[in-house]
Amino acid sequence: MTGQPYIAVLGPGERATTADVAAAREVGRLLAKAGATVLSGGLGGVMAAATEGAASSGGVTVALLPGTDRSASAATVVLSTGLGELRNGLLIRAADAVIAIGGSWGTLSEIALARRTGVPVVCLGGWQVSDPTGANVELAQAGSPADAVERILSLINRPETGR
Amino acid sequence: MTGQPYIAVLGPGERATTADVAAAREVGRLLAKAGATVLSGGLGGVMAAATEGAASSGGVTVALLPGTDRSASAATVVLSTGLGELRNGLLIRAADAVIAIGGSWGTLSEIALARRTGVPVVCLGGWQVSDPTGANVELAQAGSPADAVERILSLINRPETGR
Amino acid sequence: MTGQPYIAVLGPGERATTADVAAAREVGRLLAKAGATVLSGGLGGVMAAATEGAASSGGVTVALLPGTDRSASAATVVLSTGLGELRNGLLIRAADAVIAIGGSWGTLSEIALARRTGVPVVCLGGWQVSDPTGANVELAQAGSPADAVERILSLINRPETGR
Amino acid sequence: MTGQPYIAVLGPGERATTADVAAAREVGRLLAKAGATVLSGGLGGVMAAATEGAASSGGVTVALLPGTDRSASAATVVLSTGLGELRNGLLIRAADAVIAIGGSWGTLSEIALARRTGVPVVCLGGWQVSDPTGANVELAQAGSPADAVERILSLINRPETGR
Repeated sequence: MTGQPYIAVLGPGERATTADVAAAREVGRLLAKAGATVLSGGLGGVMAAATEGAASSGGVTVALLPGTDRSASAATVVLSTGLGELRNGLLIRAADAVIAIGGSWGTLSEIALARRTGVPVVCLGGWQVSDPTGANVELAQAGSPADAVERILSLINRPETGR
Repeated sequence: MTGQPYIAVLGPGERATTADVAAAREVGRLLAKAGATVLSGGLGGVMAAATEGAASSGGVTVALLPGTDRSASAATVVLSTGLGELRNGLLIRAADAVIAIGGSWGTLSEIALARRTGVPVVCLGGWQVSDPTGANVELAQAGSPADAVERILSLINRPETGR
Repeated sequence: MTGQPYIAVLGPGERATTADVAAAREVGRLLAKAGATVLSGGLGGVMAAATEGAASSGGVTVALLPGTDRSASAATVVLSTGLGELRNGLLIRAADAVIAIGGSWGTLSEIALARRTGVPVVCLGGWQVSDPTGANVELAQAGSPADAVERILSLINRPETGR
Repeated sequence: MTGQPYIAVLGPGERATTADVAAAREVGRLLAKAGATVLSGGLGGVMAAATEGAASSGGVTVALLPGTDRSASAATVVLSTGLGELRNGLLIRAADAVIAIGGSWGTLSEIALARRTGVPVVCLGGWQVSDPTGANVELAQAGSPADAVERILSLINRPETGR
């Protein structure tokens, strides 16, 4: 990776909890402060909060919308894809790493796709995954927004574990 | 839904277990016998076995390849997408319902996307998902290939629970 | 290329002329007779006629729909993409070569994309393209459905000029 | 359309002429001065020149790369799509209007897709399209970079002719 990192913040929209939203705002703020470009899926909840937080630190933010109404997001650059949930795949592809906050099927689809394609993931809350024996499948869990940001930045700065 | 159902059979390629492969072949055979068109991601393991099983019953099979080498699959119709893992989203969009066999990150990304977009899912083995309290997030589990096929066909024939 | 060729038949839907439709049906029939799988964009006009023609010779046909209503096409395999006009790019990617019949902006976008990506194209009627000096930019023009099919099959059988 | 307009500048990369590149730089500069966000396909030639021109006026620029190497573009936001030429369709979808400079098959595919999907297009040089009777199919031609920018901005500000 050259230049500033592109970090996607993933998480539920309407179904985000108050704690998810607060965590997302802080994650966005800290990522922007560290010089990262913050990507999201461009809707509400975790996505809007990460964008707001990053903007509050003067960061560059990007929203990849499922639809075509750019007024849905306040990001620096808002891209209408019209792809529906297929835009999740583009978001993972454009990111150097992802922080997932809270749980939903859409978020899990993005986490799993990131894992499948070698994009580092750190989770803050959210769902767990276990195999048929009941053993957890490893998903890195952070204890706080600051911990999530620190861990994700360290992952992308070690080429052998990055993409 | 009108006409014959389109059912995607999802599951790992190289990492599929012997039991996954045997189950996929039987699921494919039973789906074709029931008149379904069987979709897959076009690679090996569960994907190839579902295609073989369906072909053994004279069924129509479709493979959506991540790459562009059509010789990767023996399906009736093999489509080179060149989209990499983004073809997972197309597979879910083209299917009326999905049967997931075995566990992998790629398979989980497809299951989660199906759930997100309202496409019925039945699992046969594979990973479990739990929320932060440790409670399982509901994923319909079948006990056998025949049970999986029976359940998925009943789901798509009840419009209120189908797409 | 191994196995039977995949040939996309491109052309307008509602705005197709009677001559376009008749030519598409004959092109579809001849392609299927030659063992090709016939791909189309799955709507009416040229697309439906190519599918019908190929089916009349017992050929395998594939429709890549812009939307999600499979009843729009009578092809052997009908794939809902929900991608709108972005499905044009998938159609070109999945095809070994294309025959374009008649003129429209959608058809021209597909012809141009095929040329851009090295997919052989033969046109039957349709629009011409010229550079700023007024000189025509070369687009192979066939004189009849039989000529179009013969030329496209010869192009894909010469690896040095194929993809 | 609400907020600042998103204008894509389309044109050849390596095959761009010196005049194309100079025109693209001036178009980028004028678009940014008018408050537009400037989108491009992220490679060289016309694409790089439009980005440079817009940056010289302090504009926000976006590159949608066909590949995944972000160092290919100096845009404010550079998105790796890995979609190859399929990213052309995303570029058209994300833009309110497009200015096409110079001629190539890739550029023509984008112009045609824009016309197909109702996105206003103004050309500066480039290829002409004619129907079977030899009559030109209408493509708005500008006489200079300033004329192109003035015309495209007037088109998107008249809702009845915009998207």
